Amino acid sequence: MAGMVTAIVMVQAERQRVQETAEALAGVPSVREVYSVTGEWDIVAILKLARYEDLDDVVTGHLRKVEGIARTQTMLAFRTYNEALLDQGFGVGLDEGQQR
Amino acid sequence: MAGMVTAIVMVQAERQRVQETAEALAGVPSVREVYSVTGEWDIVAILKLARYEDLDDVVTGHLRKVEGIARTQTMLAFRTYNEALLDQGFGVGLDEGQQR
Amino acid sequence: MAGMVTAIVMVQAERQRVQETAEALAGVPSVREVYSVTGEWDIVAILKLARYEDLDDVVTGHLRKVEGIARTQTMLAFRTYNEALLDQGFGVGLDEGQQR
Amino acid sequence: MAGMVTAIVMVQAERQRVQETAEALAGVPSVREVYSVTGEWDIVAILKLARYEDLDDVVTGHLRKVEGIARTQTMLAFRTYNEALLDQGFGVGLDEGQQR
Amino acid sequence: MAGMVTAIVMVQAERQRVQETAEALAGVPSVREVYSVTGEWDIVAILKLARYEDLDDVVTGHLRKVEGIARTQTMLAFRTYNEALLDQGFGVGLDEGQQR
Amino acid sequence: MAGMVTAIVMVQAERQRVQETAEALAGVPSVREVYSVTGEWDIVAILKLARYEDLDDVVTGHLRKVEGIARTQTMLAFRTYNEALLDQGFGVGLDEGQQR
Amino acid sequence: MAGMVTAIVMVQAERQRVQETAEALAGVPSVREVYSVTGEWDIVAILKLARYEDLDDVVTGHLRKVEGIARTQTMLAFRTYNEALLDQGFGVGLDEGQQR
Amino acid sequence: MAGMVTAIVMVQAERQRVQETAEALAGVPSVREVYSVTGEWDIVAILKLARYEDLDDVVTGHLRKVEGIARTQTMLAFRTYNEALLDQGFGVGLDEGQQR
Amino acid sequence: MAGMVTAIVMVQAERQRVQETAEALAGVPSVREVYSVTGEWDIVAILKLARYEDLDDVVTGHLRKVEGIARTQTMLAFRTYNEALLDQGFGVGLDEGQQR
Amino acid sequence: MAGMVTAIVMVQAERQRVQETAEALAGVPSVREVYSVTGEWDIVAILKLARYEDLDDVVTGHLRKVEGIARTQTMLAFRTYNEALLDQGFGVGLDEGQQR
Repeated sequence: MAGMVTAIVMVQAERQRVQETAEALAGVPSVREVYSVTGEWDIVAILKLARYEDLDDVVTGHLRKVEGIARTQTMLAFRTYNEALLDQGFGVGLDEGQQR
Repeated sequence: MAGMVTAIVMVQAERQRVQETAEALAGVPSVREVYSVTGEWDIVAILKLARYEDLDDVVTGHLRKVEGIARTQTMLAFRTYNEALLDQGFGVGLDEGQQR
Repeated sequence: MAGMVTAIVMVQAERQRVQETAEALAGVPSVREVYSVTGEWDIVAILKLARYEDLDDVVTGHLRKVEGIARTQTMLAFRTYNEALLDQGFGVGLDEGQQR
Repeated sequence: MAGMVTAIVMVQAERQRVQETAEALAGVPSVREVYSVTGEWDIVAILKLARYEDLDDVVTGHLRKVEGIARTQTMLAFRTYNEALLDQGFGVGLDEGQQR
Repeated sequence: MAGMVTAIVMVQAERQRVQETAEALAGVPSVREVYSVTGEWDIVAILKLARYEDLDDVVTGHLRKVEGIARTQTMLAFRTYNEALLDQGFGVGLDEGQQR
Repeated sequence: MAGMVTAIVMVQAERQRVQETAEALAGVPSVREVYSVTGEWDIVAILKLARYEDLDDVVTGHLRKVEGIARTQTMLAFRTYNEALLDQGFGVGLDEGQQR
Repeated sequence: MAGMVTAIVMVQAERQRVQETAEALAGVPSVREVYSVTGEWDIVAILKLARYEDLDDVVTGHLRKVEGIARTQTMLAFRTYNEALLDQGFGVGLDEGQQR
Repeated sequence: MAGMVTAIVMVQAERQRVQETAEALAGVPSVREVYSVTGEWDIVAILKLARYEDLDDVVTGHLRKVEGIARTQTMLAFRTYNEALLDQGFGVGLDEGQQR
Repeated sequence: MAGMVTAIVMVQAERQRVQETAEALAGVPSVREVYSVTGEWDIVAILKLARYEDLDDVVTGHLRKVEGIARTQTMLAFRTYNEALLDQGFGVGLDEGQQR
Repeated sequence: MAGMVTAIVMVQAERQRVQETAEALAGVPSVREVYSVTGEWDIVAILKLARYEDLDDVVTGHLRKVEGIARTQTMLAFRTYNEALLDQGFGVGLDEGQQR
């Protein structure tokens, strides 16, 4: 998924609605992977956005409308470290599509 | 990456060594994606393991040897919600490769 | 319990329902030990899973349906340190059944 | 392990010494299970004590002398919920050996 | 109070019910001292148990039934340091009644 | 210990010096009970002061000079709930010696 | 305000009732100063007590009855550092009125 | 102290230097009261500033140069609730000197 | 915006009302910028006040009346570092309008 | 500053180097405003980026090289609420330059 912007959204869901919430998240545009996870958070969703600007649509237009979500915390990637490119000496600010 | 087990490792690195640490992480087997991220953590690494059992090798054999790491927190995925499969009515405990 | 995968689930229960919740947990498949404990958490449940993949069934299929649970945090074991084996020089990634 | 008192000790270890620390813990008397775990803690040790009073020996006499430990938090079980006994209507304060 | 096992229970009570809760705690068997305190917690209760095993009765049988309690955290003493005995060279695991 | 003012001091000690620190605490004037405890703190000391004003002497003159202490948190009791007195209808702001 | 005992009470109030709560606090005996403040807490009240023993009356008799309070945390001063006295070499445990 | 702006500075000091730090704070201009306090913080200093703008001088020019300070957290008052004025119906944004 | 006092207000809003809350904040006097942000907080509002004293009006008169806000934390700027001025050797306590 | 992407960086600095650190931050490209602030953080820097992609340069290329920084937390704005535009009915994902 070269040239995409990645966001990692950690979700705490209402106890009885974790599965339903995760399934709803899996249907949101730009959401590529959704997992039930061990630890303090219930669900992690991995977003692949064409442009940073799309995060707003996904969050405001979709994520906030998914029922069963109690709390979220979004981590936005601003630098990607890709082994292949690193081997070739490319310092990549973003994905290789936007290599410096 | 059907049939893989996903782990999300959040990393706080020593301030002056974030980039060097992220680049080292990108070279660790099973580590597919490494990002500098906004928020409380400096780096997020996404692992794709053939089997859960491989997490030990990656963590003990590699991650713990990466210099510059101050703190890590690993979230292991134990259920994947894949929209395509969900549409086809598959309740997937793991990836479709281990569909119930 | 060689060859089993261990998970430790820490539980905060609704105040008046700790005992009822703990008893319900004790009836969940793969849950081997359940304790009321001192400290920040009310209950600790120790799971023994045949395979990591079973964690999903236990959590999604059972734990989330136990009433009275306010919050849980699951720690999944990915390496076992067994004194007997260590004495014999076995580095065990998992239980001795999956010794490297 | 009827009649034993269980304690769960969560351990944060110095980054480079997790394995060495876990192996040392596995050698401590009364320590039955030691795991590397996902999440905020590095290691969990499960102790089985003949009597509560033994906790002091284990902690003061041994755990505190294990090098590489940065922080520990001990949860002491004061009630065991054992499915078998529960089925037979035993309300067990401790293990069945001390059943009410 | 030689030979007793001490537990310190920190309590957050519903705002309007602190006094009523503290008074109820003062009536619970094994509870020797109850205080309103400064700081993050509202009340501290000091228990003196004949045996560790009694903690379960007190917590499960009584404390959990006291209305007005929002949150508790129990610290169980496993070693007593008594100046008099220390002067006489006694290393006391527990109270002097169980001196080593 | 009627008429005394109680303070509960929670202590985190340097790992290798918990016992030595606790023993030093046991020798401090007004410190009546010192315990190794389960949970987040290593040691709890219970002080009985003739007057609130004595807390300063104990803390400034003694506690701060005990080596091995990493962190402390003091909870000062400002109301005592004593079952005996409560039965006799005494609302006690402090100990019975200062009953309203 | 020589010879007084100071307590600092930090208050989180229900969002819509901060002003009303602060005004009620300003009317409580011994409460000398009440402020809306920046940061994690909404209100800080500074109490000047004739004697430590009065804290109980203020907290139990008044503060707990002020509506709109969600959470409080009280810090009790046990040593006063007064520049004027310090210049004159007085080590003051309390206010100069109780100088050693 | 009508017309003054109040700031409350909470301080954690290096263990062995609490008293020395508090005494140094007492000598800082605009610092009117300095206390050793119970709870999570070691010292609280109460500042009275002629103008908000003076906070910078005090913090940057003085507080940051006081040795022995490990951590501080400043709460700045932006509204004063003064019982006397409230009785006379004055809604006071600041002190009565700047009454609306 | 020389000569203005800056405050940064971090806001957690009720999940379904983030956008509505942010829009309401954007309409509050002195609020210059309002953003949905990544991380632990939902919204950040940047205020530019003519005088510190205006913070009270904005917070008490407006912010507290915006529906949908669950929690806020205000950081008030008391020193501005402006590159242009710094180049010209001005140590600025506040904005250049109040240069020392 | 229409069309710019805003990031808010909260900084904890080494105690004796807050001013020096803030001044260095003020010299970093894209950093428009730097303040000493009240509360848990020492400094807040407000960045205005031409494109999201520039955040990497600023963080990796500059911020991480500023000495004296102990900890940072970056909040990236992904939606701007601008009162003027809101009045004209523009729902703005980003700044008006990227209005939907």
